[in-house]
Amino acid sequence: MTTYALPPNANAAASACLTRAAQMVAPALDAAVGRLSPSLQEPVHHHLAGGGKRVRAALSLLSASAAGATEETGVVGAVAIELIHNFSLIHDDIIDGDTERRHRSTVWSEFGIGKAIIAGDALATLALQVMLEQPTPERVRAAACLVEATQVMIAGQGDDMAFESRPWVSVAECLDMERGKTSALLACAVSLGAILAGAPDATVAALAEFGSHVGTAFQAVDDLLGIWGEPARTGKPVGSDLVQHKKTLPVSIALARADHDLPELRRLLEGNLSPADVERARSLIEDCGARDATVALADEYLDLALAALDRVSLVPGPRSDLVAIARFVTERDR
Amino acid sequence: MTTYALPPNANAAASACLTRAAQMVAPALDAAVGRLSPSLQEPVHHHLAGGGKRVRAALSLLSASAAGATEETGVVGAVAIELIHNFSLIHDDIIDGDTERRHRSTVWSEFGIGKAIIAGDALATLALQVMLEQPTPERVRAAACLVEATQVMIAGQGDDMAFESRPWVSVAECLDMERGKTSALLACAVSLGAILAGAPDATVAALAEFGSHVGTAFQAVDDLLGIWGEPARTGKPVGSDLVQHKKTLPVSIALARADHDLPELRRLLEGNLSPADVERARSLIEDCGARDATVALADEYLDLALAALDRVSLVPGPRSDLVAIARFVTERDR
Repeated sequence: MTTYALPPNANAAASACLTRAAQMVAPALDAAVGRLSPSLQEPVHHHLAGGGKRVRAALSLLSASAAGATEETGVVGAVAIELIHNFSLIHDDIIDGDTERRHRSTVWSEFGIGKAIIAGDALATLALQVMLEQPTPERVRAAACLVEATQVMIAGQGDDMAFESRPWVSVAECLDMERGKTSALLACAVSLGAILAGAPDATVAALAEFGSHVGTAFQAVDDLLGIWGEPARTGKPVGSDLVQHKKTLPVSIALARADHDLPELRRLLEGNLSPADVERARSLIEDCGARDATVALADEYLDLALAALDRVSLVPGPRSDLVAIARFVTERDR
Repeated sequence: MTTYALPPNANAAASACLTRAAQMVAPALDAAVGRLSPSLQEPVHHHLAGGGKRVRAALSLLSASAAGATEETGVVGAVAIELIHNFSLIHDDIIDGDTERRHRSTVWSEFGIGKAIIAGDALATLALQVMLEQPTPERVRAAACLVEATQVMIAGQGDDMAFESRPWVSVAECLDMERGKTSALLACAVSLGAILAGAPDATVAALAEFGSHVGTAFQAVDDLLGIWGEPARTGKPVGSDLVQHKKTLPVSIALARADHDLPELRRLLEGNLSPADVERARSLIEDCGARDATVALADEYLDLALAALDRVSLVPGPRSDLVAIARFVTERDR
């Protein structure tokens, strides 16, 4: 298992990128949201006031500058991708019945399901409006990238939901679902800037592959946190993914291993888990090695991501910022 | 008040157009839906199997042929607009809590709210995918038309919902909401074919105005049916719009008239309406002339729609079919 000792300045570099992205994107994002009808601005502002790390925005800006353009070239991509991401969060919170996100009430729990559905729909539509209004010919390819990624993301969300009522999913099915749910939009984010910059296909493809693998590594880490994360840090109850019957990577890996008490784990995961059940299920998953295997998978995908960047020539500064962000979002002690 | 005695063959002509549109669009619509992930196809097929008149599809095809192109030119527009329309129906049924549509169970009542949200999201995204994949340069303008109309429709849906908890809305507010909820997508439908055919701006604008006014007339008729329609024909309970506190045209007109027992009507409309309350509210609305005024508004907007077509030169056959459909969808004895 590779260990990624973060270079001393990697976190600082990543944080600086995220802060800069948030500042660069805020005016355009606010202007876009300001175009929504008054009755939808309140729920949208409530949601956006919760913040968010603006990882996807930063990736879109760095995508432009890594391809040799200005970061400004990627701003419209950053706005569009953040709108799509937040549309998906608002709808996901309804679907998962989550009443809190980032320690604030979710849109549906504050304004009702109807308004939350409509607010999400409006953000998804706004993303395409913003993109198609661009005066450059690259907007069409960028818009197509955005809708393709959105469709793959929706399919992943659908599978994620469908898997909750299945007793078992294979590791391949789980990875496929997570590539949809998470990786597709990250791949799009880190392609959009290059697309808007008119970069060659090979550059766009390498960046997309980087983003896809970062997404899978990120989701693996998120899966670890969904089982073993501290509630104070994750903002979710202990073992929340287990309670919700989510078939995440550690679960699908554990369910595929015959070298442990599989019937007990299956029985636990299918029921209404008490705190003691969560504790026992966590032990069973950890004892069979599924936790370590998930960590190893995260490392492997981070390796693949970094290797993708080596295939093309990118501007060194932004390239190193992309690596810093990849490491930052896949850190296991977030 | 103008009366529109339908020419003997108008209904036959409209029916023939709708049947032809349904047949022409079905293969492309099926192919598009077939691209969705397997877990989403079941709810989408369940919804689409309910049928629908394919009015928007027919308008898109006629829009192409009225502008001098083949109907085939409008097929992609017809598919996209039907996908957007059905996305909005699936989400609307959740928002309104409707368990039946066209005498079948709605998606959310059959598959759950989560799956219905995702299915709607997938259809909205698919509409843009289908459009942006077209090899012609006109696809960009068509896609932009589609997302603009979708955003206006969403705003209208948001206002419609917000108005339910308001004791009173003005006639202007109501018309504005209905133009969003209904007219915007019809205007887009009847522009799309012409846009895809590369028609001049004046032609596209005249067709859009026709569609917008037809939409407003259609919604006025729908509002009448929502209060006085026979449950056997509408598939909804008696006076369902009143029970749901919808601020439709007859209601907003009645609430604006001081020449009747306004306090009683207001009190009735704000409560949980018993069948006797519905009956009494219907009488109050009718007695103050608001029912007739709504009929007159529908006629007025149909006149405006037909006048819009006179501003440009269109191919006579499709033009007369557009008129037949406009009359068909605004008939009050549907």
